[in-house]
Amino acid sequence: MIKTPKDELNRRLNLFISTMSKIDPEWELAVLFDKINIFYFTGTMQNGVLFIFKNNGAHFFVRRNFDRAKEESEFENLYPVKSFKDIFSYFKSFPESVYIAKETLPIIVFERFNKYFNFKNIKSCDLAINYTRAVKSDYELNFIKKAGEIHRITKEEIVPKILAVGMSEFEFARELLNQMLRLGHHGVTRIRSYNGELYLGNICFGENSNYYNSFDGPGGIKGVCPAVPLFGNPDTILEKNMLIHVDTACGYMGYYTDKTQIYATGNLPQHVYDEHKKCVEIQNRVAELLKPGNTPSEIYEKVMSEIEEEFLPGFMGYKSNQVKFLGHGIGLHVDEYPAIAKGFDIPLVENMVIAVEPKKSIVGIGMVGIENTFLVTEKGGICLTGDNHEIINV
Amino acid sequence: MIKTPKDELNRRLNLFISTMSKIDPEWELAVLFDKINIFYFTGTMQNGVLFIFKNNGAHFFVRRNFDRAKEESEFENLYPVKSFKDIFSYFKSFPESVYIAKETLPIIVFERFNKYFNFKNIKSCDLAINYTRAVKSDYELNFIKKAGEIHRITKEEIVPKILAVGMSEFEFARELLNQMLRLGHHGVTRIRSYNGELYLGNICFGENSNYYNSFDGPGGIKGVCPAVPLFGNPDTILEKNMLIHVDTACGYMGYYTDKTQIYATGNLPQHVYDEHKKCVEIQNRVAELLKPGNTPSEIYEKVMSEIEEEFLPGFMGYKSNQVKFLGHGIGLHVDEYPAIAKGFDIPLVENMVIAVEPKKSIVGIGMVGIENTFLVTEKGGICLTGDNHEIINV
Repeated sequence: MIKTPKDELNRRLNLFISTMSKIDPEWELAVLFDKINIFYFTGTMQNGVLFIFKNNGAHFFVRRNFDRAKEESEFENLYPVKSFKDIFSYFKSFPESVYIAKETLPIIVFERFNKYFNFKNIKSCDLAINYTRAVKSDYELNFIKKAGEIHRITKEEIVPKILAVGMSEFEFARELLNQMLRLGHHGVTRIRSYNGELYLGNICFGENSNYYNSFDGPGGIKGVCPAVPLFGNPDTILEKNMLIHVDTACGYMGYYTDKTQIYATGNLPQHVYDEHKKCVEIQNRVAELLKPGNTPSEIYEKVMSEIEEEFLPGFMGYKSNQVKFLGHGIGLHVDEYPAIAKGFDIPLVENMVIAVEPKKSIVGIGMVGIENTFLVTEKGGICLTGDNHEIINV
Repeated sequence: MIKTPKDELNRRLNLFISTMSKIDPEWELAVLFDKINIFYFTGTMQNGVLFIFKNNGAHFFVRRNFDRAKEESEFENLYPVKSFKDIFSYFKSFPESVYIAKETLPIIVFERFNKYFNFKNIKSCDLAINYTRAVKSDYELNFIKKAGEIHRITKEEIVPKILAVGMSEFEFARELLNQMLRLGHHGVTRIRSYNGELYLGNICFGENSNYYNSFDGPGGIKGVCPAVPLFGNPDTILEKNMLIHVDTACGYMGYYTDKTQIYATGNLPQHVYDEHKKCVEIQNRVAELLKPGNTPSEIYEKVMSEIEEEFLPGFMGYKSNQVKFLGHGIGLHVDEYPAIAKGFDIPLVENMVIAVEPKKSIVGIGMVGIENTFLVTEKGGICLTGDNHEIINV
């Protein structure tokens, strides 16, 4: 069993504490409920509540399952509880103010909790959590690089063998998922945003990648049906001279990379290749700028300002699908901090991991463009998901 | 494209309104944000806010994607908005009290919303939503029966062909998922509970089904790793004379059934078959009682009181995994209202759908027992997921 080492847990906790102290030097306590945050800080994904005191350590009160937490976790302060009120048998008094992760906590869970604790002043620690999780250690990068390698093999070697004229989009998605699992992809795809959902990714033949969708990304998707607007469509059949848009997450030991590759069954009009090439250039331009000290908002504005105006219609999404970012952080969730977008003004630091995804919708054809996952370094972004960024003919 | 018919959308809305009026005759407005609830009432899974007035109809304000909502939905009152404040361009005044689904709504989403609306009195409509969704129409049952049929074929015909001594638990899970998708399973598995997560289900060789887990069910699971405690374990290899616990959801057009089947590679000790048989008898006893008018809490207490005391250790879970229910509602989520448990005192009505899952942990062997999905009828529960409830030898 792979246990998150104690040094690594301490690194995460210390970074969170120092980040919180920059945001609010007077903070005293943060309380976390979300299982991904709990895994991040404790190394076990059990159900419970994590108290992080500025000056009194971190303490995980485990409802279910304490025995598993003990087996899996190198985290020191584990306590069994049956309900929130059992926490008082370990700690008697608490400050009046508390920080919580408001982005992911349902109202009812906090109400049930605060019935006992009666915190008066409730603030959000989302930014501190997001920033902390954005900066990856070598331990984490090891998993991300492995996910990137599975991604590279899948997109460069496996997909061209699977795609065949006459198959349905759903059939292709099914076989792609099967092969990714065979190579070590861990299965579930995790999204942080409320109402966000991915099942592997957006897999589209032809104009389905221009189809409207509710997900906050540039690529469209038709999906299985209105109740399952995910994965692949059973009624869309691959034809000759069709464009195929394959945007998937790949997970290894909890960590994700994100990658989009475009394929074609035969020749597409020359302008399609030209517009694709332009997207690859934009990706590479963003990647160049993925250096410590640069801010995501400046990168966004600089790169967008360099794009000729006539290229903008359809860029980053078909009509109302259009989004206002060029990339996003990635780690234990596919959609992490920071986005390469306006409003993200904290400078990048070394070892952030960012998926860059310039794409363009072409009416009558589908989405061209590219997505790869990059490591922020002094030399600019290093691609972790393979180097073949062309449209691959199958 | 399968569109939810207008009559069906009206049925759902009217049942919700009449249920709310029973709970609070003075209610005026409920506001829903969760995409599964939005799909349920509108037939499209777009991002936005649904206002349901007691006396002024239901209105869906769609942020992303309005065009798709128009294409997919038979719901009448669709309005495009870019932000919550745009709702004021359609409606000028609102009551002071609002009902929201507190179980699934993150604090930050409601704070962003209420900055504009400034509702003073915020109550939970979770029970009314849950009750409404629990009562299925023929339209919905059609999909659930189809999921049940895919489930039956998978568990009775496919799994015995896949299982082979020497394969890993993860390999088996991968091939099982692949075959279920081939038969029409729609992919994603949706859980309503906070921090709940399933990737197909709990797939366990031998004692892995006794392994501690955080999920609120009787069956244990080891899963891929501490970060992905789901699906199947890559290091557990199927041996001769081993018990296999296969608990999966199966989805069709958004609707789920739940089913567990036990397999064995060769002979197990006689007491294992005896304890399994006892679980099947308990399932059938619960099913007999799944009639309109009976309350889930009474069914739970009656059936539990009939079980001999010496059978109870390990029943419904290994040690700290033990849960206090015998079944759960199922529909657009795998975990729906009602549970067959204490505290669920509203009588069953015809066409509720309940998964019944009496299971028992046997030390050194794994979990025996059964799960099937039943339709509540005047004659008792009708099984929708197949009739072979024995341990299947492979």
